[in-house]
Amino acid sequence: MKNLVGACMFGQSGGPTSVINASAAGVFTQALKEKNITAVYGAAHGIKGVLEENFYDISQEDKKELELLKNTPSSALGSVRYKLKKAEEDETDYKRLLEVFKKYNIRYFFYNGGNDSMDTCNKVSKYLMSKGYDCNIIGVPKTIDNDLYGTDHCPGYGSAAKYVATTFMELCLDAKVYDIPQITIVEVMGRNAGWLTAASSLASYKGLGPDLIHLPELPFDIEKFVKDVKAQVDKTGKCLVALSEGIKTKDGRYVAEAISETEKAKDSFGHTQLGGVAYSLANLLRNRFDTKVRAIEFSLMQRCAAHLASKTDVEEAFMAGAMAVKYAVEGHTDKMVVFERQEGKDYKIEYKLMDISLAANTEKTVPLEWITKEGTGLTQDYIDYALPLIQGETKAPYEDGLPRMAKLKKVLVNK
Amino acid sequence: MKNLVGACMFGQSGGPTSVINASAAGVFTQALKEKNITAVYGAAHGIKGVLEENFYDISQEDKKELELLKNTPSSALGSVRYKLKKAEEDETDYKRLLEVFKKYNIRYFFYNGGNDSMDTCNKVSKYLMSKGYDCNIIGVPKTIDNDLYGTDHCPGYGSAAKYVATTFMELCLDAKVYDIPQITIVEVMGRNAGWLTAASSLASYKGLGPDLIHLPELPFDIEKFVKDVKAQVDKTGKCLVALSEGIKTKDGRYVAEAISETEKAKDSFGHTQLGGVAYSLANLLRNRFDTKVRAIEFSLMQRCAAHLASKTDVEEAFMAGAMAVKYAVEGHTDKMVVFERQEGKDYKIEYKLMDISLAANTEKTVPLEWITKEGTGLTQDYIDYALPLIQGETKAPYEDGLPRMAKLKKVLVNK
Repeated sequence: MKNLVGACMFGQSGGPTSVINASAAGVFTQALKEKNITAVYGAAHGIKGVLEENFYDISQEDKKELELLKNTPSSALGSVRYKLKKAEEDETDYKRLLEVFKKYNIRYFFYNGGNDSMDTCNKVSKYLMSKGYDCNIIGVPKTIDNDLYGTDHCPGYGSAAKYVATTFMELCLDAKVYDIPQITIVEVMGRNAGWLTAASSLASYKGLGPDLIHLPELPFDIEKFVKDVKAQVDKTGKCLVALSEGIKTKDGRYVAEAISETEKAKDSFGHTQLGGVAYSLANLLRNRFDTKVRAIEFSLMQRCAAHLASKTDVEEAFMAGAMAVKYAVEGHTDKMVVFERQEGKDYKIEYKLMDISLAANTEKTVPLEWITKEGTGLTQDYIDYALPLIQGETKAPYEDGLPRMAKLKKVLVNK
Repeated sequence: MKNLVGACMFGQSGGPTSVINASAAGVFTQALKEKNITAVYGAAHGIKGVLEENFYDISQEDKKELELLKNTPSSALGSVRYKLKKAEEDETDYKRLLEVFKKYNIRYFFYNGGNDSMDTCNKVSKYLMSKGYDCNIIGVPKTIDNDLYGTDHCPGYGSAAKYVATTFMELCLDAKVYDIPQITIVEVMGRNAGWLTAASSLASYKGLGPDLIHLPELPFDIEKFVKDVKAQVDKTGKCLVALSEGIKTKDGRYVAEAISETEKAKDSFGHTQLGGVAYSLANLLRNRFDTKVRAIEFSLMQRCAAHLASKTDVEEAFMAGAMAVKYAVEGHTDKMVVFERQEGKDYKIEYKLMDISLAANTEKTVPLEWITKEGTGLTQDYIDYALPLIQGETKAPYEDGLPRMAKLKKVLVNK
């Protein structure tokens, strides 16, 4: 526990969310208030910006624009997918980081991201400690995947879940509008964790959701799926499906690949990129039944639809950033901010700290007991867990009928 | 001009929009007030509901739920794609309609839809006149495609345009977040008219829109497109593209088909349905450059995202329905409601009538002079035309953090 005086560096990493900039606003707003923090820097494209000495002087930004970050999607500073090698294997990057930290007297480092980013944060933290360089380092969690270990949920999930649930309600009405049989298959992001796809059950909870929900937590049986869809169409004339991009067959192959081997001609797209599983299954069903089948991907919209952000999520994301700064100034280091849900019927969370090493590279998936025994829906336990996270609508400012996004000056610090 | 006393029948037809139910609310609210209207019926699945005598008694609906129709997407009564044959060729359906109209003393008929629906409306109108059956018939326009002749714009377009522009702003931030070259191709609905794709230029107007916009109004040159994309990526590292699903090469083939003949292996999806042109072009570009390419389809979301509806559009859609009833009760028939934009710097429209025969089966496309000479953007004239249509956000009610959609009782009228 050391009280340090010096500059602070903040970086954004990994896939963006609707509220990752709200965490940036939290870090900046709090850091600019702290006497012990002599300068506030924002790294361009995360750790790469630090290595290349490309970072912005946040003190030069207009307060109003920093406030607007709360409603601006994507990573305002730019993001990066850059995995540091182990220091034992290659010390180059670490030596460079230490050099930059010393040059600018950086004594506070905040890194905002998911599993990989927390791994980076952990490695930097351990290295600087090993060199006896004092720097309080706190990770700020972020991911629409909600798969970070040790926290009740992740900033970014609530807004993505609100997008998925709202859009399924709207699609449910649209996809059933004609008096003819119709199958609609919607692909939701999530490679190994089905949290985001599970959010479609919040629409079912309102009576306007998918008939079948498939998460990567359970193996996907293609022939059973075909039977389930047929049964649903025979019963109601319509079938609405939600599935995770990462669903796999029981032998561990991605579904799009598994299909391509049985119905070659039909799915060259299955191979081109992860995603496309909805298209592959749609084509499979077109071959089996003479029914209208539509495939839909929520694609990037599910992670950047800030106009539909959850007010709860925006506020929590902001607080996650602000609390990281407070804890660091108090002397904490080598930790990640986590959300702890409090007992009692009213939803309330507290912001705690966890050793960053625990967050690095561990994935939290949907508890199997929250999946119905048929394997195609979520239980009330999930609804009770997720519903508080999507509460509230933001009063984001509009200009000319369109969202007013933050405009940062991004004044680079002289090298 | 006859003042009639009797029942009124309302039907929804064609592809739904975010606000088609607002027009239904307008028709119902006004019709329930009119002394000359003895009963208010809503046809299940449009003209088919009339033919099959499946329609609902709207007087039994809760007023609050009818009000909620303003914020409920898709066609609450169910829609249909059913084209009446010419009466000269086959009179069966027409005789049946006359029979039903007589049985229930239907003296007012309102049909809500696009080109095909106005054609139906026109045929029914002319047939009943030829049989000397008095019935005042008014068409209520609707389409996200904005391609109806004789009206400044169509209800449904403003909200779809607001979705497209807002989503492009959000995507523009997300698609440019990494420090690597990236190409993003977004496919927007529109077979022959590029109005909806043109709305992406409203995002460009805010500095967060596509770099290239392609409408079906101009032939699409695949090789020029590849060059344009490369030039943009070389310049900025990123390229965001908006294109209509219906773009064709100069020899009149849909682009997905044209590609499949040159790069067979790559695009079986191009064939499976109209749509998929973004995927086809994405694969083409993957073969040409070693760059990350993502294809996105707005799919059904662009026509059912009522949570993002334009307040202006919702109010105009409601008024279009209400005015149709007022005009019919005054004795007008065989017309469609049209929007006439008034002179002056403040946006104002008046609700007028046009002969329904003029609306039937004529498509209004984007004026070529509103497309920039490069053919990849829209001029200020389009911005000035479209901006007023997306103004205002609705105060739709939320329940548990999700939109509260209208729940109709749908009490069927006894046959």
